[in-house]
Amino acid sequence: MAKQLNRQLGSSQVHIEDAFWNRFTELVRETVIPYQWEALNDRIADAEPSYAIRNFRVAAGLEVHPYGGMVFQDSDVAKWLEAVGYSLANHPDAELERTADEVIDLIAMAQHENGYLNTYFTIKDPGKQWTNLYEAHELYCAGHMMEAAVAYYEATGKRKLLDVMSRFADHIDEVFGAEEGKLRGYDGHQEIELALVKLYRATGEERYLKLAQFFIDERGAEPNFLVEEGKQRDGYSLWAGGKRPIPTVPQLAYNQAHKPVREQEAAVGHSVRAVYMYTAMADLARLTGDKPLLEACERLWNNMTRKQMYITGGIGSTHHGEAFSFDYDLPNDTVYAETCASIGLIFFAQRMLKLEAKSEYADVLERALYNNVVGSMSQDGKHYFYVNPLEVWPQASEKNPGRHHVKAERQKWFGCSCCPPNVARLLSSLNDYIYTISAANNTIYAHLFIGSEARFELAAGSVALNQQSQLPWNGYTRFEFTDVPGTPFTFSLRIPSWSRGTAVLKINGQAAEFKAENGYAVVNRNWQRGDVAEWEPALEAQLTAAHPQIRANAGKVAIERGPLVYCLEETDNGSPLAAVSLVTTGELHSRFDDQLLGGAVVIEAEGQLDEQVSWQEDTPYRPYEQRSASKHIQLKAVPYYLWGNREKGEMTVWIRALG
Amino acid sequence: MAKQLNRQLGSSQVHIEDAFWNRFTELVRETVIPYQWEALNDRIADAEPSYAIRNFRVAAGLEVHPYGGMVFQDSDVAKWLEAVGYSLANHPDAELERTADEVIDLIAMAQHENGYLNTYFTIKDPGKQWTNLYEAHELYCAGHMMEAAVAYYEATGKRKLLDVMSRFADHIDEVFGAEEGKLRGYDGHQEIELALVKLYRATGEERYLKLAQFFIDERGAEPNFLVEEGKQRDGYSLWAGGKRPIPTVPQLAYNQAHKPVREQEAAVGHSVRAVYMYTAMADLARLTGDKPLLEACERLWNNMTRKQMYITGGIGSTHHGEAFSFDYDLPNDTVYAETCASIGLIFFAQRMLKLEAKSEYADVLERALYNNVVGSMSQDGKHYFYVNPLEVWPQASEKNPGRHHVKAERQKWFGCSCCPPNVARLLSSLNDYIYTISAANNTIYAHLFIGSEARFELAAGSVALNQQSQLPWNGYTRFEFTDVPGTPFTFSLRIPSWSRGTAVLKINGQAAEFKAENGYAVVNRNWQRGDVAEWEPALEAQLTAAHPQIRANAGKVAIERGPLVYCLEETDNGSPLAAVSLVTTGELHSRFDDQLLGGAVVIEAEGQLDEQVSWQEDTPYRPYEQRSASKHIQLKAVPYYLWGNREKGEMTVWIRALG
Repeated sequence: MAKQLNRQLGSSQVHIEDAFWNRFTELVRETVIPYQWEALNDRIADAEPSYAIRNFRVAAGLEVHPYGGMVFQDSDVAKWLEAVGYSLANHPDAELERTADEVIDLIAMAQHENGYLNTYFTIKDPGKQWTNLYEAHELYCAGHMMEAAVAYYEATGKRKLLDVMSRFADHIDEVFGAEEGKLRGYDGHQEIELALVKLYRATGEERYLKLAQFFIDERGAEPNFLVEEGKQRDGYSLWAGGKRPIPTVPQLAYNQAHKPVREQEAAVGHSVRAVYMYTAMADLARLTGDKPLLEACERLWNNMTRKQMYITGGIGSTHHGEAFSFDYDLPNDTVYAETCASIGLIFFAQRMLKLEAKSEYADVLERALYNNVVGSMSQDGKHYFYVNPLEVWPQASEKNPGRHHVKAERQKWFGCSCCPPNVARLLSSLNDYIYTISAANNTIYAHLFIGSEARFELAAGSVALNQQSQLPWNGYTRFEFTDVPGTPFTFSLRIPSWSRGTAVLKINGQAAEFKAENGYAVVNRNWQRGDVAEWEPALEAQLTAAHPQIRANAGKVAIERGPLVYCLEETDNGSPLAAVSLVTTGELHSRFDDQLLGGAVVIEAEGQLDEQVSWQEDTPYRPYEQRSASKHIQLKAVPYYLWGNREKGEMTVWIRALG
Repeated sequence: MAKQLNRQLGSSQVHIEDAFWNRFTELVRETVIPYQWEALNDRIADAEPSYAIRNFRVAAGLEVHPYGGMVFQDSDVAKWLEAVGYSLANHPDAELERTADEVIDLIAMAQHENGYLNTYFTIKDPGKQWTNLYEAHELYCAGHMMEAAVAYYEATGKRKLLDVMSRFADHIDEVFGAEEGKLRGYDGHQEIELALVKLYRATGEERYLKLAQFFIDERGAEPNFLVEEGKQRDGYSLWAGGKRPIPTVPQLAYNQAHKPVREQEAAVGHSVRAVYMYTAMADLARLTGDKPLLEACERLWNNMTRKQMYITGGIGSTHHGEAFSFDYDLPNDTVYAETCASIGLIFFAQRMLKLEAKSEYADVLERALYNNVVGSMSQDGKHYFYVNPLEVWPQASEKNPGRHHVKAERQKWFGCSCCPPNVARLLSSLNDYIYTISAANNTIYAHLFIGSEARFELAAGSVALNQQSQLPWNGYTRFEFTDVPGTPFTFSLRIPSWSRGTAVLKINGQAAEFKAENGYAVVNRNWQRGDVAEWEPALEAQLTAAHPQIRANAGKVAIERGPLVYCLEETDNGSPLAAVSLVTTGELHSRFDDQLLGGAVVIEAEGQLDEQVSWQEDTPYRPYEQRSASKHIQLKAVPYYLWGNREKGEMTVWIRALG
């Protein structure tokens, strides 16, 4: 049934087969999903219990325990189920599907008569439903379960969870709305908006799309719902367990509810909330043709990715509120750059690509994916960074409270375990991010270079495409059309920003001209079965400078190679890394090191090490003229995504530039 | 009477007459003390009321109000009175003395029958005396009032406050002690220890010295008093107004009560508490000959000043707990460097000089005084920095919560107003910091170069000495002996670290040889009345580098000139200051600018400005090779102590070094 759905016009089916990415997708399938299942069931030694499955058993009436975990603990089960859905779509597994079916049975049992579903309010605070949207994540949890329902349905064709969540969506639609007697509200944590769009896509029920639009339209309108709700609760806070000051409208910038979304100029507040909301806004702009909404998306995209994004694709400059701060404030050491925020940025980029194929969107998507997101997970798939710093001094992480949030080592599944299941669901659905199509315009856009088998349903007919890529180590990618409609269609290949505009296209072995449009090499022809397009954007190690307004990176360079950002680690380069500078006139030497954590290209560069020997322990400051000559050294940079997988030590992405 | 006391062997009387310092001492006398008096009486518009005097009126039974201000609000009155004492000693003022006498009458009226004195516990929490040493600052407030009592007595010869505080000290001595039935405790905030030493000096009562020693000896002993006291209170916290977790022994590092003081290896915890304690430790080591205590002082001095001190003499690297963090962690932007902590460092340095005349102690004292401390006060004497940053980006101070504590502009008298009165009492007693003497060894040490008239009582007899100094603008200082005993004595002149060991001595116009000992030029001779010693340490603008372990300053230089640290301000050098580098091979040109805030030497240096024009707003990162040539510019550096007195803007002490 799922297969049938996918053969509709405009659908794509992509299956990844790629030397680089198979490692991650297998890790998710073979390690992360099983490990997370253990975690959800409180069976990981030395890790805080999750209670997430237990809460559902209690809510289903099967057991009696107090509620456990955070108020949004349900969402962990949802994200796991969503990842399972994607995984089953790509790699059937009867036992895993049976486990998931059992979980879905449990979820269905926990649903109330009227469709309501939330274990926190069922177990711990019955009767308080919909009274604390500001804090309680009710619609957020609902949204994640809707995403799971859609993923599971599309993978297996099984409707049970989809039906459960449709009933819940119907209930929500009865509770929320502009009509008299309904709550004119929205969640403190955006998520349901994008989920309702997915539920609409899977079910065709327009009410769900309209409900998503309602939530987006209401957000930040006056009188402010979250302020009024706070007054209704007399300031009661479930986090504080007592009264707290009711938030002011400006404080609701944290929730992006300080003004109507169409009027928002810059990315502000909690960064995960922001990008989840922007994703839904882009979905709605595409599906409804809402121009002011589209303009808001473009404005927020521009502000965020051009002035508030780390080179690794990380967003969120401060751990206070896990939030954006302001333009060009991108400290490397006190950074937040939460894994979930970069995942949300990838969602938003994908939706922007669906609105318009501009290579800028894919450049950012690729940047966040290959660096911040993949780097958050350890090579064993069992340890994660929430915070993805660009500079680490382990002692400071331990001893300076302002840097406690920056960990020098990946941690086991956390108490607030948003990131690991988010990584799992992204990596297991990575096939959805490689291409977009414009069925009506008979165009296929190749955004990412990831080996895969794909089938697209264009107006002209069905196209099957095999992609083989040497990324990220080499720029070469080969596309072969294994099925074609026999009439012309357009194949558009992204010209990545890292190629600096230099890319060679060959068609059937012959160099081919192409027209560049919006950062894509556009080839319209009557493609034949067996036609081969070879695509090779220039992929070389290069030095990157940051905008002078980004004060943290003044006088520094970063090393990049293709989509990968590189870093220096203490284990290769000694300590302190701050004493090292890179000779910018020197050669960057790339070398594949098959001994490095499964094999990776390392980059060697000419460097200088500030002389340290002549410094006495008793001299914190001394005349500059007493310096001795710096030592010439060879620097060794490794891909950022691999950092922190060897000895614990210092790390830096930005390196002092010499020359 | 005070005069008689001071004519004892070993006493010194110093009166400042100095072009540079008169401005500050006059400011304190004419503006700060009167302004602070207004503040203590809640008469400053737009500033939080202090309630400090009102609390005393209430405690004295004259009025009825609730208690106002912090639990340690009494100490503000004490610090003001102490400053008044010093001011009156240097500059009699009948009206000010009358006001102070009235305050002292009020204080006496607020004292309990048994000697107890504290308005918080009198008004707000009667019956709870001595039950919360951890938080309530009872002994801390007592200590400050003892300091005031001694200062006022020594200035005016009036014993009233001295007697009040002696009665209180007697009461404390009955309550605290190792004997059965007494409290084996100490204050959460050290201060009384150093105050009791002063009270001992003024009264000759040895019990006060022993009580100080008791507090120092008990601190950090097992079982830990502050932990046990917390259990007695069942965790009640007056800050929280309810239960809080009882602190663990390691957490008591904040109060330097995590281990016995003689075993402490490094400066830890709240930096003001630390230096107040070290000051008392040095006092006691000197007065009792306690060698382990002396060794602890030296160890803690070395750790703090060599590994945890900013170039401005600031200490405390983090605002979390206003505390030290760890060796070489000296971030310029998230810094604390509280004014009060540098003042305490000056106290400690002075006590170390009394133990042993080593120029290192005076170098640090001078550094903290001319930079961190003087820089904390605005030119009008009415605005203060608590936090004294070495790098400021005003937008970040406003919009990045991790930097909210770093203000770009001095603030009015604060709710927690520890710093302004502390500045006042230090500057009005600055005459005490210029010299120390060893009466028995017939030696006068000149530590600071500040114009002054001095009289010393050596074993050999009385010496009167006139000092005229051109510091900080020129290195030249002239000493004239206006009274001498007629037998030989030793005059030791500090060779400042900033002279790099180059200093010229002339005696009566003739170049004179000198022996250098512990960083002092030692001249023993039969000085005659009218003898003139001219002393000129080399004073030139120079570049300073930081130890390579201080990662925050890697690749950077600071400009220093004599005792002054310099900085760049946006108003002179544009923004962002991070785009600026200093050409280290260029000349540093010093020029007296009489238009700059009362006149100061500014330093011009060759600089480069990273090219910004070619950067597009839409490009956060781009290939380094696309850079254009940097622009040659002239940098203008101003003394750090003057920063933030013109347009609000960026400031930096450490500048990227080029070449």
